[in-house]
Amino acid sequence: MTPTRTVLEERVASAAPAEAKPLARRRLLASCADQPGIVAAVSRLLHDAGANIIQSDQYSSDPFGGTFFLRMEFAGTDHVVEGLAERFGAVAERFGMTWRFGNPAVPKRVAILVSKQDHCLQDLLYRWRRNELEAEVVLVASNHADHREAVEAQGLPFHHIPVANPAEKPEAERQLLELLDGTCDLVVLARYMQILSGDFLRLVGVPVINIHHSFLPAFAGAGPYARARERGVKLIGATAHYVTEDLDEGPIIEQDVNRVSHCHDVGALTRLGADVERTVLARAVGWHCEDRVLRHGNTTVVF
Amino acid sequence: MTPTRTVLEERVASAAPAEAKPLARRRLLASCADQPGIVAAVSRLLHDAGANIIQSDQYSSDPFGGTFFLRMEFAGTDHVVEGLAERFGAVAERFGMTWRFGNPAVPKRVAILVSKQDHCLQDLLYRWRRNELEAEVVLVASNHADHREAVEAQGLPFHHIPVANPAEKPEAERQLLELLDGTCDLVVLARYMQILSGDFLRLVGVPVINIHHSFLPAFAGAGPYARARERGVKLIGATAHYVTEDLDEGPIIEQDVNRVSHCHDVGALTRLGADVERTVLARAVGWHCEDRVLRHGNTTVVF
Amino acid sequence: MTPTRTVLEERVASAAPAEAKPLARRRLLASCADQPGIVAAVSRLLHDAGANIIQSDQYSSDPFGGTFFLRMEFAGTDHVVEGLAERFGAVAERFGMTWRFGNPAVPKRVAILVSKQDHCLQDLLYRWRRNELEAEVVLVASNHADHREAVEAQGLPFHHIPVANPAEKPEAERQLLELLDGTCDLVVLARYMQILSGDFLRLVGVPVINIHHSFLPAFAGAGPYARARERGVKLIGATAHYVTEDLDEGPIIEQDVNRVSHCHDVGALTRLGADVERTVLARAVGWHCEDRVLRHGNTTVVF
Amino acid sequence: MTPTRTVLEERVASAAPAEAKPLARRRLLASCADQPGIVAAVSRLLHDAGANIIQSDQYSSDPFGGTFFLRMEFAGTDHVVEGLAERFGAVAERFGMTWRFGNPAVPKRVAILVSKQDHCLQDLLYRWRRNELEAEVVLVASNHADHREAVEAQGLPFHHIPVANPAEKPEAERQLLELLDGTCDLVVLARYMQILSGDFLRLVGVPVINIHHSFLPAFAGAGPYARARERGVKLIGATAHYVTEDLDEGPIIEQDVNRVSHCHDVGALTRLGADVERTVLARAVGWHCEDRVLRHGNTTVVF
Repeated sequence: MTPTRTVLEERVASAAPAEAKPLARRRLLASCADQPGIVAAVSRLLHDAGANIIQSDQYSSDPFGGTFFLRMEFAGTDHVVEGLAERFGAVAERFGMTWRFGNPAVPKRVAILVSKQDHCLQDLLYRWRRNELEAEVVLVASNHADHREAVEAQGLPFHHIPVANPAEKPEAERQLLELLDGTCDLVVLARYMQILSGDFLRLVGVPVINIHHSFLPAFAGAGPYARARERGVKLIGATAHYVTEDLDEGPIIEQDVNRVSHCHDVGALTRLGADVERTVLARAVGWHCEDRVLRHGNTTVVF
Repeated sequence: MTPTRTVLEERVASAAPAEAKPLARRRLLASCADQPGIVAAVSRLLHDAGANIIQSDQYSSDPFGGTFFLRMEFAGTDHVVEGLAERFGAVAERFGMTWRFGNPAVPKRVAILVSKQDHCLQDLLYRWRRNELEAEVVLVASNHADHREAVEAQGLPFHHIPVANPAEKPEAERQLLELLDGTCDLVVLARYMQILSGDFLRLVGVPVINIHHSFLPAFAGAGPYARARERGVKLIGATAHYVTEDLDEGPIIEQDVNRVSHCHDVGALTRLGADVERTVLARAVGWHCEDRVLRHGNTTVVF
Repeated sequence: MTPTRTVLEERVASAAPAEAKPLARRRLLASCADQPGIVAAVSRLLHDAGANIIQSDQYSSDPFGGTFFLRMEFAGTDHVVEGLAERFGAVAERFGMTWRFGNPAVPKRVAILVSKQDHCLQDLLYRWRRNELEAEVVLVASNHADHREAVEAQGLPFHHIPVANPAEKPEAERQLLELLDGTCDLVVLARYMQILSGDFLRLVGVPVINIHHSFLPAFAGAGPYARARERGVKLIGATAHYVTEDLDEGPIIEQDVNRVSHCHDVGALTRLGADVERTVLARAVGWHCEDRVLRHGNTTVVF
Repeated sequence: MTPTRTVLEERVASAAPAEAKPLARRRLLASCADQPGIVAAVSRLLHDAGANIIQSDQYSSDPFGGTFFLRMEFAGTDHVVEGLAERFGAVAERFGMTWRFGNPAVPKRVAILVSKQDHCLQDLLYRWRRNELEAEVVLVASNHADHREAVEAQGLPFHHIPVANPAEKPEAERQLLELLDGTCDLVVLARYMQILSGDFLRLVGVPVINIHHSFLPAFAGAGPYARARERGVKLIGATAHYVTEDLDEGPIIEQDVNRVSHCHDVGALTRLGADVERTVLARAVGWHCEDRVLRHGNTTVVF
């Protein structure tokens, strides 16, 4: 049930004439109030500059008065691409755009936080080693020491920042912030069972993605599998979302479910759930790293 | 994503020697405290009586102290089968069983209640005409007159019992009870948008199945599609459940979901949701009519 | 498991200021050799003409030397929109485009051919009555008379064109061609169990969509459910495709599957399969009518 | 879309009184011509012997003249359980049963064969470490040396048995047979890209499970993802099956699919396919190890 996503990157990489210098690529992510002429202006700018649009996706929450979202991937010589950011500023100003350029050649630096359950951690590391994620994992931190050996065996730094009791949490967050400062573009909570404070989220300065082990908004909070069994649901799910101060309420990036029955006890639900969790989190992290996810209020646009 | 169910019925019907009188069939549905010897005692009774077990499913919530559930389908001559209910009483008493015999040759009589949305109604009627449901639809009742023509065109009685305001509800329920009294074995709320009172549920004397247009327990209550859109969920679902006094809290029989995205507005979510609703309700009604669903506290065992 | 599709139409319709004359809409479908500047040229033309791009999807089979596909939906005053087709000719010529304009206000006229199984027919008619398809069903034709009453009861012409033996087929096709001539924009084979000749396909002059009752290319040809049971597959599927002279080999528009098990005999597989068939065909017909499907050799691009 | 399976094992293990010696468990797997009295005889034997039936599943391909399949799990004291195999012989003879007793306390010994692609290998090892499989992985063998380090790091023996050209294959198979002789109860081909000879299959003496990277019978043979792209299918799948001399024709244990679109090139299809492959193979191996799979001609019964 994986949704279909545009996967032109490798064709681009491989299709350019072998003898020529490969073209540089960039991704424009932009949003603004919807209004006539946006696509015409952007595509003209890119064309006039000598860049070739490789892929373009757009969405308007309402073509007459809503918000317009654009993801445009283009290729050009280093010279062309480097000059574009500056020239784009004028167009962006005209339309009142929020925008940024992403560079697919520079993988996002990802820090992974984990507690005792390692299925999401292991799956992310596996996909990272296989180059399935447009990401560079830079460190793993945990409030438990359990996974030190497994992480270090993969050549990654592991940081144990314990939180023995609630009183230690501010200090642990301080250490985490120090550790993460400037080292990463994304923090992934791969079953990190500590609630991060609003101060932490403001200070960390990069997006934080969490995997929640239920189909939100059902079974928000703790113990979702036990509650799913009590309620007799026929599907269990998982939700990857950006973390906000409102616990389990942040913008949802991806969800999926798995069929279960009365035969599954809490242990079995937990095991089956682990498969959904790792799948859903890997998709969300992958899409984020490919600059496919734009926030829209408390929801997301996923191109 | 339809779960797999045993579907031996037609093989049984067709496999019996053509020249011989076809065997009668029955289904035993039983539950009791789990204890040794249940299957041995039941299967021996059936075998000694000359009945042939065609299918048997069992489940124990805990083999050492839980509840045991059994569904056993068997065939025998009319004489054998008719004598069995009496003989089974002794076994049932010994194990403290709650039990009943179902007769697949006698389809459940089903009354359908509907409001303005007719997709579930139409799908149930379609499957009924195709003999996909082990059921006989006996009447349709509605608080609106919209579907009279379509229902009567299929040779079914249609009853318009309006509920113009809350004050009229007790009288409407009284009329419904009078209408349903003795005429049906199951009431299906196929998008019937009135909340039935506890008194009604006690007096109607037969199970009531409802389709809720969300993946419960998420988005219980009204307007689930609008709330799903606001929350930015990536899957929408539907839930078929037995109706209890606790609104949207009754034992769940079946659930399913459909993938959606930011592109789907409330209208589109509603349309896609209608497809899930009709599918989920048809499965739940079908399984109930085939005596596959046993209640277990506030959950179900679906064989 | 329905894929997500852009569903902006109703927002467009409802969002235009109520007092103003509603804007006309058109859809541009175009393909050509991929080359720089296409989107810039097209979007500029539309913008300069005073049209507002509502939605735009593009795909390139290879950004450096492949085929480029574009679907662009736009709105403007009647005057603007009517003048555009002419002005677009010059752009199309410059890029060597194959192209056409679709008008969402003019639903596709659909003729349905059916044999004895009516589940796909009924589902299409149901969705047509609910306005879920951007289509106008204009007639139903069949080689059997079984469904005359059901079709005529919905106010639709029903044509019985029997094919008692292979020798009658040319004459039946001749009658069908006469019937369909100029009356429809799409022919849907909703379980029409006759193989149409190459001559018929050339002469009918409109696309023909078929539903095949298996997950092609597995179990092409007759009796897919019996062969699926013999082979012990764990999923059964259905495939909607454009009909070409190569039987069961035409470009695939949509496919889906349903989980089955050893418990399902051929009858049960057939019943479960019917649900997948009707779902898959309805999606394919809907997408075709919304101008979302472009052929690409023997495959399709579905926007 | 994971099918639901009975998962009572851990409840049994945990529910037995803590102070008492835990009960021994066994699984009876049996098949024979369907006939009256089988369940009665088997359950009576178990009950009389003092064993408690924990779970029972049965299936008959045809209650009047087909084949009957039974999986019954029971618990008893060591004394009771050990005496049962002998006593069961008489019942088995009476009904002409093929049967065996499985002991869940003795995990199946599994040898994994792999070539260059390691996603299935890694997933199996991951689940083995987490105790998700009722199996003991005993060795990994490969025709390439690539995965030696990763395998040995997990404390497992790795055997490199190269097959540089077809002429070397008989010798490689001889080495494999020597290696596997007596060491394993199951061989898993986790993307082992060598075709095993009929001689090998006869001599190895244990079941061999393969994962095929397509939804069989579609795209049997080599290069399924390239052919899937050429054919424009909208779903890609994987099939786990027992290996027989008829290549890609052995009894299917499990299948699943993933939705794709025109956007996915062969590389993307291969990556998405890898996820389905590892999931499908893990399920098949898990079910086999839990004695849930019985062969039925060229198909399987999966309880």
